[in-house]
Amino acid sequence: MKQIILTGDRPTGRLHVGHYVGSLKERVRLQNSGAYDEIYIMIADAQALTDNAEHPEKVRQNIMQVALDYLACGLEPEKSCIFIQSMVPQLTELSFYYMNLVTVSRLQRNPTVKAEIKQKNFETSIPVGFFCYPISQAADITAFQATAVPAGEDQEPMLEQTREIVRKFNDLYGETLTEPKIVLPSNQACLRLPGIDGKAKMSKSLGNCIYLSDEPEDVKKKIMSMFTDPTHLRRDDPGHTENNPVFIYLEAFSRPEHFTKFLSDYQNLDELKAHYERGGLGDVTVKKFLNNVMQAELAPIRERRKEWEQRLPEVKEILRAGSEKAEKKAAETLYAVRNAMQINYFDNNI
Amino acid sequence: MKQIILTGDRPTGRLHVGHYVGSLKERVRLQNSGAYDEIYIMIADAQALTDNAEHPEKVRQNIMQVALDYLACGLEPEKSCIFIQSMVPQLTELSFYYMNLVTVSRLQRNPTVKAEIKQKNFETSIPVGFFCYPISQAADITAFQATAVPAGEDQEPMLEQTREIVRKFNDLYGETLTEPKIVLPSNQACLRLPGIDGKAKMSKSLGNCIYLSDEPEDVKKKIMSMFTDPTHLRRDDPGHTENNPVFIYLEAFSRPEHFTKFLSDYQNLDELKAHYERGGLGDVTVKKFLNNVMQAELAPIRERRKEWEQRLPEVKEILRAGSEKAEKKAAETLYAVRNAMQINYFDNNI
Repeated sequence: MKQIILTGDRPTGRLHVGHYVGSLKERVRLQNSGAYDEIYIMIADAQALTDNAEHPEKVRQNIMQVALDYLACGLEPEKSCIFIQSMVPQLTELSFYYMNLVTVSRLQRNPTVKAEIKQKNFETSIPVGFFCYPISQAADITAFQATAVPAGEDQEPMLEQTREIVRKFNDLYGETLTEPKIVLPSNQACLRLPGIDGKAKMSKSLGNCIYLSDEPEDVKKKIMSMFTDPTHLRRDDPGHTENNPVFIYLEAFSRPEHFTKFLSDYQNLDELKAHYERGGLGDVTVKKFLNNVMQAELAPIRERRKEWEQRLPEVKEILRAGSEKAEKKAAETLYAVRNAMQINYFDNNI
Repeated sequence: MKQIILTGDRPTGRLHVGHYVGSLKERVRLQNSGAYDEIYIMIADAQALTDNAEHPEKVRQNIMQVALDYLACGLEPEKSCIFIQSMVPQLTELSFYYMNLVTVSRLQRNPTVKAEIKQKNFETSIPVGFFCYPISQAADITAFQATAVPAGEDQEPMLEQTREIVRKFNDLYGETLTEPKIVLPSNQACLRLPGIDGKAKMSKSLGNCIYLSDEPEDVKKKIMSMFTDPTHLRRDDPGHTENNPVFIYLEAFSRPEHFTKFLSDYQNLDELKAHYERGGLGDVTVKKFLNNVMQAELAPIRERRKEWEQRLPEVKEILRAGSEKAEKKAAETLYAVRNAMQINYFDNNI
């Protein structure tokens, strides 16, 4: 069986280092692993509109930003088909038919949707489109007959909903769709980066993100202002490394060679942590080191991004060609779906 | 402004005399009135699938039956565009975007949906597609920029939902969609025919319908077996005409000329009713008269139906051409919708 990946992001803002360590870096690794026959990366504008219906221009403007971030991180259009969700109308048709296979109470029980409804303060005024997005995601995944969906553990209930739809469809209409598996990040430490203010989630509105497109001086400024251990008042005080954003970032980014290069008093992160915990190591020293580490990681990404920024018509063409390719694949699946459901009236006799 | 009609039926069975007096007869009258610039008649297979997902072959087989019933009743493809809903994929895309403009609690308050959920015994296991069908109907209506929807009074809440979506869309994205009005049947008495067993609703599963395709002897048999007034035991007993199916059918079908022709002892229905109510008039006399009246009305319909049954490839071509025309119109609306929402990325610059 062909190994096929479907994944993507909502274009509601530029991507930040949280996206990078949580998914983009892994995505590039999977792309270059040679283990996958087809890779589809979706810029999920239609999904973004389910809770941004009043701000289509925000979604529109961020499509290009996300595409630039993708290319900057090393996604290559020759290996990964990058496309815009709303340019593949077959996805809405698949959603429409899958909606008949899921009950309202089943959707209400979805823990991911429950959590997001709470987080977004929707209460009873949830837009129907948002409420139904697990079904729309099932359409996205199955349209490409994806076998693998790289995502965080919190997305497992969404995948389970997709598998339920696949099984119900195949039971009712005959084997047509493929059950996907989740592919968790290989490095669990990288799952979630907090904001620079120590808040659990990076968010544009909180202004606590380091973006892939940030300039070196902005990155430095943000790192030097990072929240650390509030009990570590003086250099000599013992410090805490757990729940300390600076050390969480170091867990995600630093490698032994960074110590050789930028902070040769220590062999590795464990030694640095031990010193911080027993006292005598200042926040400024650690932050300066983190800045060096992150600048080293982000410099080539920023450089590639700037190159692509000079070639916007090419980026647009990548999205156009990717969307065309994605549409072709989704149309094949839709054709099979309609055949299975016997609503192919003009191909066969009514 | 162009006057445009959108209406239709779910293909879940052949159409019966209840459909005929409740909507088809009126539809033909509107078609021939010259008051409308465009008329779209939709065979709503996709909507039928929302609560028949497990029986697509039932829906499939009834598409042709409904088309034959339409042509038999006098709908003319030159004047009325007859099409199959699922052959117009733009409708699912419009639904998808309208879903962002309606809240879950708003759908839950829809009285028509509430009543149907109760009637179908769905309780908590309502399919999402069925739950969302007011939104799908809004897509059907607005795709054709319909100004008029001929329907019974019970459909008014559905129309109100459509108007809400239109207003919300136009407010958010600029004037794009048209608010439809309901067109109630001109003859209120014709709104609802009971089954021949006196049950409020004709239903295939209850076996209490007279179909437009029934043979004369079947029609006669059904009429002669009709439920009447259970207190009218002997010919001389006083009878009740209210809630008496035979008289409800006579209200819907009989005209003064029928009395001249078939029962000249009476000038009109009022005289017949008066006699029945004071006693001395047998059910058999009244049923025989109803049979004559209905045979007169149904004969030309049956005859035209038989003609069309000999020309199935032509009927199929009518549906194909109608669906093509409908798709073209819906595509124009979808283009305007996407433009308004600014998700026309490759037409304009991202």
